[in-house]
Amino acid sequence: MIPGPYLLYLGHSDDEVGIKTSRGLAAFQRDACVGEWRHDDCPLTLGLPRMSVAEARQAGARTLVLGIANAGGRLGDDLIDDALLAISAGMNVASGLHQRLRDEPRLVAAATAVGVQLFDVRDPPVDLPVGNGKPRAGRRLLTVGTDCSVGKMYATLCLRDAMRARGIRADFRATGQTGILIAGDGIPLDAVVADFIAGAIEMLSPARDDDGWDLIEGQGSLFHPSFAGVSTGLLHGAQPDAIVMCHDPSRAHMRGLPHYQLPELKECLDANLRVARLTSPAVRATGIALNTVKLDDVAARRLCDQTADALGLPCTDPYRFGADPIVDWTLQCFAPSAPAMTASR
Amino acid sequence: MIPGPYLLYLGHSDDEVGIKTSRGLAAFQRDACVGEWRHDDCPLTLGLPRMSVAEARQAGARTLVLGIANAGGRLGDDLIDDALLAISAGMNVASGLHQRLRDEPRLVAAATAVGVQLFDVRDPPVDLPVGNGKPRAGRRLLTVGTDCSVGKMYATLCLRDAMRARGIRADFRATGQTGILIAGDGIPLDAVVADFIAGAIEMLSPARDDDGWDLIEGQGSLFHPSFAGVSTGLLHGAQPDAIVMCHDPSRAHMRGLPHYQLPELKECLDANLRVARLTSPAVRATGIALNTVKLDDVAARRLCDQTADALGLPCTDPYRFGADPIVDWTLQCFAPSAPAMTASR
Repeated sequence: MIPGPYLLYLGHSDDEVGIKTSRGLAAFQRDACVGEWRHDDCPLTLGLPRMSVAEARQAGARTLVLGIANAGGRLGDDLIDDALLAISAGMNVASGLHQRLRDEPRLVAAATAVGVQLFDVRDPPVDLPVGNGKPRAGRRLLTVGTDCSVGKMYATLCLRDAMRARGIRADFRATGQTGILIAGDGIPLDAVVADFIAGAIEMLSPARDDDGWDLIEGQGSLFHPSFAGVSTGLLHGAQPDAIVMCHDPSRAHMRGLPHYQLPELKECLDANLRVARLTSPAVRATGIALNTVKLDDVAARRLCDQTADALGLPCTDPYRFGADPIVDWTLQCFAPSAPAMTASR
Repeated sequence: MIPGPYLLYLGHSDDEVGIKTSRGLAAFQRDACVGEWRHDDCPLTLGLPRMSVAEARQAGARTLVLGIANAGGRLGDDLIDDALLAISAGMNVASGLHQRLRDEPRLVAAATAVGVQLFDVRDPPVDLPVGNGKPRAGRRLLTVGTDCSVGKMYATLCLRDAMRARGIRADFRATGQTGILIAGDGIPLDAVVADFIAGAIEMLSPARDDDGWDLIEGQGSLFHPSFAGVSTGLLHGAQPDAIVMCHDPSRAHMRGLPHYQLPELKECLDANLRVARLTSPAVRATGIALNTVKLDDVAARRLCDQTADALGLPCTDPYRFGADPIVDWTLQCFAPSAPAMTASR
């Protein structure tokens, strides 16, 4: 386990989506975070006290979390220099980037000299199995998305918390670096070798017979040309009973690809159900989760209502308004006397 | 490059599909193969002279190709012992298994002592890009399948040869270990980290403006619960103008999964076109390739004719009857005055 409390790194970031790992920790593990470290050119904040490495150390921080992301996940010189500073102050360093801390000789040498640890949370387990698609016991809900970074992890965690608040056993199954840092374990799916994507999820979310739910964090989108393979294997390995589709209505185009438009919600839902049916023939969509952070309350509520009407499913911003509408319907759908499915879902 | 000629390994294999790498080399690089090495309990043959390591060495073999596969791609003790025997006779060893030769200390020590090389053809390039889905110039044809191991590589190579016989520039883009051994290069797609599947194919088959065709070897199947993520990323990265669907009519169930039936041909074709349209909106299916090895000539011809009628596309066994019907229609479809598309394809 990674020693807390954490200092969350923002560095020189000026892209809100790029700091999602730091923001996720601040949102769901706030008690474990002493502060944020950002340079003068960083216009973003998590609402935590701004601290230097020395101040954070004094406040008790034991690990610097490099909670920023970029396409390709590389360690730039600025990141390395800042990580060296934290190490020299006696802090461990954790990273979810593709490029590993342990592959950077300067970091390894410094950590060894000081006696601190480097944590690469994007290391998948060795000896993953190939997926087998065999039906397994238990209830599973998977979040899917119209795009990358639209709020799938937030929705999954909110659904878990709303289920737990009702006394239902519910476990969050993390598939990305932020989720793994929050949950303490999981499998970084985008770092798994392609042949083992589905098998990794079968391992992450095994059969359960305690009437509880596994809430599985989705990744990517079937409509993202870079990452749809990951989303497909995840759908097949998850063998979901229920899917909840996540969407960011402010997104102008697919993340990182200005030449790709977002899919229609209905089209995206249908595609996910179609792919999921290969391993889970009775899969149902049980809700839509919107990320309404850029809308005021009235506009956000109205959009949720309109979306619910248009798709015939409960729709909420689970982080802003709570996940109860989706949990209500999900539990109804899978109760002993469940409502019948409509033709399309 | 791997030094030829080769001794092809069958070992103790008793599963025809498991020896597909050795068989592929025997089929498409026969001149580079001096013989086959099989143990007494192996009922299979490639039709090459059966040889011991010593006999093969005497016949000029420079590399033992471990051309067998198993689910998970592990190196068993029997394979290691046999590879050690070849090394001690002065031969290099090449393997396409997931588990690397270089990770087995006994092989590394022996190869170093003797002064021969170990070739792991399942090593993808480092620094692969993330896919970007940007439209690129050139004509690309991708083979897709109802299942794994149904003849996609054979069909792709036959299509290439048939195009070349007409004077068309045509290049085979290998995505699996057998294809890579035959072509001399390529990317082992199933060993690529999940985030880079589509990007690997964009790199493998870059833009071309010489009126030639890239013939891209397909992998897996959208209907195989273990590997559909790979097939999805391949479809998106390939950005195919044309797809050719491959099928083995003798297959009783999905490879390795007795609890999964094969999809209907039409259903499979539609699903592939639907996924491909994300990056190649005008994609067309231009043929069906059957693997009829288990049928007699009359039954094979009849099945091709029936399939062509049922799907409204040319259908052939390209290895048995030639790929010309599919090449004819493909070239017609993409000629300056191409026939119009029907609604479904």
